[in-house]
Amino acid sequence: MNAIDKLTEIFKEFPGIGERQARRFAYFLVARTNGYNDVLANLILDLKKETGQCQECFKFFNLERKSDGQNICEICADSNTDSSLLMIVEKDSDLESVRKSGAYHGKYFILGGLVPIVEKNTKSRVRIEELTKKIGREARPSGLGLASLKEIILAFSLSPQGDHTDFYVRQELRELAESLGLKISSLGRGLSTGTELEYSDNDTLKNALKNRQ
Amino acid sequence: MNAIDKLTEIFKEFPGIGERQARRFAYFLVARTNGYNDVLANLILDLKKETGQCQECFKFFNLERKSDGQNICEICADSNTDSSLLMIVEKDSDLESVRKSGAYHGKYFILGGLVPIVEKNTKSRVRIEELTKKIGREARPSGLGLASLKEIILAFSLSPQGDHTDFYVRQELRELAESLGLKISSLGRGLSTGTELEYSDNDTLKNALKNRQ
Amino acid sequence: MNAIDKLTEIFKEFPGIGERQARRFAYFLVARTNGYNDVLANLILDLKKETGQCQECFKFFNLERKSDGQNICEICADSNTDSSLLMIVEKDSDLESVRKSGAYHGKYFILGGLVPIVEKNTKSRVRIEELTKKIGREARPSGLGLASLKEIILAFSLSPQGDHTDFYVRQELRELAESLGLKISSLGRGLSTGTELEYSDNDTLKNALKNRQ
Amino acid sequence: MNAIDKLTEIFKEFPGIGERQARRFAYFLVARTNGYNDVLANLILDLKKETGQCQECFKFFNLERKSDGQNICEICADSNTDSSLLMIVEKDSDLESVRKSGAYHGKYFILGGLVPIVEKNTKSRVRIEELTKKIGREARPSGLGLASLKEIILAFSLSPQGDHTDFYVRQELRELAESLGLKISSLGRGLSTGTELEYSDNDTLKNALKNRQ
Repeated sequence: MNAIDKLTEIFKEFPGIGERQARRFAYFLVARTNGYNDVLANLILDLKKETGQCQECFKFFNLERKSDGQNICEICADSNTDSSLLMIVEKDSDLESVRKSGAYHGKYFILGGLVPIVEKNTKSRVRIEELTKKIGREARPSGLGLASLKEIILAFSLSPQGDHTDFYVRQELRELAESLGLKISSLGRGLSTGTELEYSDNDTLKNALKNRQ
Repeated sequence: MNAIDKLTEIFKEFPGIGERQARRFAYFLVARTNGYNDVLANLILDLKKETGQCQECFKFFNLERKSDGQNICEICADSNTDSSLLMIVEKDSDLESVRKSGAYHGKYFILGGLVPIVEKNTKSRVRIEELTKKIGREARPSGLGLASLKEIILAFSLSPQGDHTDFYVRQELRELAESLGLKISSLGRGLSTGTELEYSDNDTLKNALKNRQ
Repeated sequence: MNAIDKLTEIFKEFPGIGERQARRFAYFLVARTNGYNDVLANLILDLKKETGQCQECFKFFNLERKSDGQNICEICADSNTDSSLLMIVEKDSDLESVRKSGAYHGKYFILGGLVPIVEKNTKSRVRIEELTKKIGREARPSGLGLASLKEIILAFSLSPQGDHTDFYVRQELRELAESLGLKISSLGRGLSTGTELEYSDNDTLKNALKNRQ
Repeated sequence: MNAIDKLTEIFKEFPGIGERQARRFAYFLVARTNGYNDVLANLILDLKKETGQCQECFKFFNLERKSDGQNICEICADSNTDSSLLMIVEKDSDLESVRKSGAYHGKYFILGGLVPIVEKNTKSRVRIEELTKKIGREARPSGLGLASLKEIILAFSLSPQGDHTDFYVRQELRELAESLGLKISSLGRGLSTGTELEYSDNDTLKNALKNRQ
């Protein structure tokens, strides 16, 4: 197997990339300048050195922004972040999407995956224990003047697995949330941009009707 | 122009049908038996004779179900229909879609179109006057024991024109609704079936967050 | 079942139409004027009266063009048609497509279908016997001055079933064609408009290479 | 701009990759192990060191296969390659596609691009001069017993730009080919796999008819 074949094999593992496009990537790189490929390779080599995983929310972040030697991302470190809200998302790109919408200014927690509907050992897959600890810390902040956590927002994709994860996390947090007086909410459901009534599925119509206002 | 060309011209006006498929329809019919074509032609000829438009909700309905010589559709005539709710939809197929979902058991009103964002003479296009009269009747039912109207539900597709229609109808009904003590609601917005957070537009995320519960 | 349901059932049989679009067609018609529906119904009723099937090529054609009381279509009746060429196609819409290209001025024969790869009683499905007789007539024209048939062009879609039909018709005609000194050809194969080499299948590349010129 | 943003910028330049997928690639890599990223980065760094560009056909190839210290790819170096045929293709992935089809066993030449329809300085973009020299060498091989070039096959995608490139290369090579007694051919045109007559464009039908056999 030559270098182009090997690169093709690796690019095939990239999300959404098949054999053909993987090979095109390899040929694309072989036709670049040495300089271009050096920049790319060094970015990949340094990526994990320059990127930390926030010990609070598990988001990946740029280590240059590391404050006081601690592994805290820019959102968790920002005193303007509304610490009364904690949104639980599946992955970094979901967080980015919500952040770009400009509609949310609270904290986040990255669960690290969805909970498969049929699976035994769930705890090893998603960060439910880390979440529990995080909620404990946030609900009883030690620092003076810090607003404490009031609401946990479950923000998963609207799929069977997303629904199952919502159900699972609610179950795992129920007791703790009750004891701490925390509200657990989920993202609202109904018509989304572009929804045509005529072609809507029954669940969407039911949710849209139930959540009318 | 021969018969096949003429039929092609007419089928081209059918919703979603282009020249090629229209011609395929014509050739499809020329290859059917006489019996098949007779059945189809007679159904089309009788369609409007057998189909009435409900004088209450403007839905098309089968005249065999006509009760007491009145042009009332089966939903409006059904005493089990919840007359405290009136859902305003654009067209018959929207009504069918909601009805099939099994989530709604109130009355309907078919507006007959959406209100274009830039247009002068709106009243001639949608049934806003008929709607106003209908609400007047429903809010003060003459029959004893009939539940009177409590809530008007605006149920339009989530598009700029649907939004504009929602805005227009609310404006036109505001005074009347206030004087009669009626609530005006719109279908809920947020995540719909299949929505992935990562690929959601900002409006959908904002609505999902605002309407969390 | 009411008139709209019945129409929906019939429109569902139209080529390429599912339940939803069939229902839209029915609602579309119920909202037309009586005049529109009358025109459509009468066109459908008269379609088969006004349309004959050519006794020479089996093409459907407008009976007003009928010459001398005979069921002969405008192409077969046209003395400018090159009677040295006979193209065998599956169906009327294939003929229309070739005719519109302006690249062919010979005669046609509509086989009436493709030959399924696994099937016993083929003769009952396609007009192979009618084709054999037609070739016999065309190769030995009785009229003076008429050019006689020289070449039979098989023009089927490039699919396994089209290939099988090509094979079947060649086999059935071989002896006759040899005895009459007729050439049998098939449409050329290779790159078609829009073909990108990078994404071409092996068969297309093989044909393109074999038929290079 | 942090490392993830920088990587996103670079991945956006990959063929067919937009902002969103580029960012997913970056997050994908940040979540890999250090080992995985090291392998990928080193493959990219070594790609151009391990890959040479054949001085005969301009194909990229694995330098391990370099024979006798010369920059000759495995196809050009293979004595089983039929040196009477020279196929001109646009790019490496076209060559791969033809090679995989197993239908061709001659030599290749990679032109390095298509010739834009409106452009002045064409020679700087495609390797027309290198091609001319290559043909000179191939048509008069110095080695004893080597079969000399007989036919040049132009193998470009069937698009306006591909057609223009075919026209351009034929024009540039005409005199040379005539003087050397070389045939210039182009890939055959007609029906390609999956072509349905009914939906074929006029050019494809014309080619299929012209090239019938």
